[in-house]
Amino acid sequence: MGGGVKRIAVLGSTGSIGQQTLEVGRIFSNRFRIVGLGAGKNSKLLSEQIREFQPRIISFQGTEEGLQPDNLPSDVATPQSATVEEIASHPDVDIVVIATSGKAGLAPTLAAIRAGKHVALANKEVLVMAGAIVMAEAKQHKVEITPVDSEHSAIWQCLRGEHRDEVVRLILTASGGPFLRHSMNRLAEITPEQALKHPTWKMGRKVTIDSATLMNKGMEIIEAHWLFGLPLQSIDVVVHPESIVHSMVEFADGSVKAQLSQPDMRLPIQYAITYPERLPNPQLPRMNFDRPTSLNFEPPDMAKFPCLRIAREAAERAGTYPAVLCAADEVAVELFLSHRIGFLDIARLVEQALEHHRSVSQPSLDEIWAADAWAREYAAKWRPE
Amino acid sequence: MGGGVKRIAVLGSTGSIGQQTLEVGRIFSNRFRIVGLGAGKNSKLLSEQIREFQPRIISFQGTEEGLQPDNLPSDVATPQSATVEEIASHPDVDIVVIATSGKAGLAPTLAAIRAGKHVALANKEVLVMAGAIVMAEAKQHKVEITPVDSEHSAIWQCLRGEHRDEVVRLILTASGGPFLRHSMNRLAEITPEQALKHPTWKMGRKVTIDSATLMNKGMEIIEAHWLFGLPLQSIDVVVHPESIVHSMVEFADGSVKAQLSQPDMRLPIQYAITYPERLPNPQLPRMNFDRPTSLNFEPPDMAKFPCLRIAREAAERAGTYPAVLCAADEVAVELFLSHRIGFLDIARLVEQALEHHRSVSQPSLDEIWAADAWAREYAAKWRPE
Repeated sequence: MGGGVKRIAVLGSTGSIGQQTLEVGRIFSNRFRIVGLGAGKNSKLLSEQIREFQPRIISFQGTEEGLQPDNLPSDVATPQSATVEEIASHPDVDIVVIATSGKAGLAPTLAAIRAGKHVALANKEVLVMAGAIVMAEAKQHKVEITPVDSEHSAIWQCLRGEHRDEVVRLILTASGGPFLRHSMNRLAEITPEQALKHPTWKMGRKVTIDSATLMNKGMEIIEAHWLFGLPLQSIDVVVHPESIVHSMVEFADGSVKAQLSQPDMRLPIQYAITYPERLPNPQLPRMNFDRPTSLNFEPPDMAKFPCLRIAREAAERAGTYPAVLCAADEVAVELFLSHRIGFLDIARLVEQALEHHRSVSQPSLDEIWAADAWAREYAAKWRPE
Repeated sequence: MGGGVKRIAVLGSTGSIGQQTLEVGRIFSNRFRIVGLGAGKNSKLLSEQIREFQPRIISFQGTEEGLQPDNLPSDVATPQSATVEEIASHPDVDIVVIATSGKAGLAPTLAAIRAGKHVALANKEVLVMAGAIVMAEAKQHKVEITPVDSEHSAIWQCLRGEHRDEVVRLILTASGGPFLRHSMNRLAEITPEQALKHPTWKMGRKVTIDSATLMNKGMEIIEAHWLFGLPLQSIDVVVHPESIVHSMVEFADGSVKAQLSQPDMRLPIQYAITYPERLPNPQLPRMNFDRPTSLNFEPPDMAKFPCLRIAREAAERAGTYPAVLCAADEVAVELFLSHRIGFLDIARLVEQALEHHRSVSQPSLDEIWAADAWAREYAAKWRPE
């Protein structure tokens, strides 16, 4: 990216990553102008964001009432209403931050790529569902996709200045979630309220549950595979409860590089939009070794957290399996959050969906959407044995 | 460095770093040819090295008898004898590895730089004694000085691809040596035999004692200051007993990068001569997180390890103080190893030498050598109170 003020659209602006993106935009208001906002619900917060950032274009797809132009404060220019795809490809936008979750990010990501926008990607399902298509389009349109996930940002930072053909292994760190030390019996009894309390990260509901099952980490393996072009078997996961080392890269000579910081999503968000510059941000907590610090690493317990294996297998089988993984998981998490299935049922549901799915190899976008729809239908009907 | 076979001279070839450099040369014999060897003692090992590597030029400055051309095996071409400066500047040499210790490295380092050689520097006293002169000469002759110390190699790796003006802090890790948990009373009783047992690194005698007093780390602060151009107050030390994280760099945005590997000097040696390439070396141990791993960090105890403060103060006062630091320490370590002073006397001797020294600001090389001679005389006469 060159100099000048960058015009940013934030899709998913009322979610956790979206709000933190706007915080970064507020700190660096001399460098970034928020020109587009998209939200799926929470019209109240979106109205506040419109008032503060005065975007030119907005998208609101929620079913709530209340976000009408005449409800906006009278001293604010009425933004133009548009679809998220229109915002993502709007001529006034330079960078599109995909801060949605689940399947919602795929269509606007493709729209942004096709319009030649720089994409800062926080919505990992985009690459899990359709990594081959998204990366091919990015290559064709010479578009940079910069990762917002802390793990992928860490890897991307560790790769800086290195030769890609000398990378032998990516080591994704996982906090292990709130239930790292739980027995299988205790895992069966977990409530949504317990699962929503993540020990180190403040995140949205979907990704918090995915962190507790380690499905999130399984999806990150797939995301890393697409972003950095390494084979799945060269991407390892190590549990690191402190969430200080955000991931590591091993090189051909055995040297390993790691990126560390206090767990705060504003750092990877900022880096994704300011790269290759690193800007001082007084709001970000800094690493401090003035007090004794212990960083611990251990292999993940594959028996307790089967989602890690399930996600890896779906990626290895490829075709539309990863899309089914995403869709089944999205529904399963919703069912768990509404107390209709247990915590361990999330993995069971997803695994059974994959078992019953008839995959298409090298799927088109339509075939991916069809697999998504099939998996949602399957998951909605699924009942624990 | 471009392609082709690189011709290497190893000065200090019979020391710990020298021997390990030759091990790296043996592994990559298709890329490196050992054309020069220099040693100060151990004629037996030097003879073996001559037999194996068949260098064109050698330097032996020891007082031992035995290394005479007619003692060499008859099937080996007799190498030409030369001074270390002649080897360092010889037209047949591309890379000079300065693997000596103490003051021995300064003259050949300057000779190598003036002859336009790539210098791989393991002898930290070179930059401590005469950092301003050495770096100015390197700049003038457009010579690259690549660090061999594991800490500086780590920093150099973490800086790869980054903008130097976005570096805010270097964090040097220190194992803390064998006496990290000793009380002051126990420190007073330490024998040379105990001090020579380093918990994580296999190194030469001088650097092992310097690791136990943390003088080594103090000198590394000064070395890092010269190599990477950061002010002394932006270079911190953190104790890390496992010696896995070899050092870290903090950037303007709060992101920290670390380099990790099993403690094995062959990796930084290899990187210093193969850079920018990273070559697979089957002899090097690899990082493995399959077993639980704990990496611990704590601030150094400045009361127990005053050398850290003494070294930093000498660097801040500049002039010929750092040369006095090196010389007094070199003598003090010898006195300790020969049971003539106690472990805690090392710091006392060095500090008193600095107190009594009359420094010269922006010293010439001659003034540095004069300060070195003064400090050695002072140290030899010094007696514990």
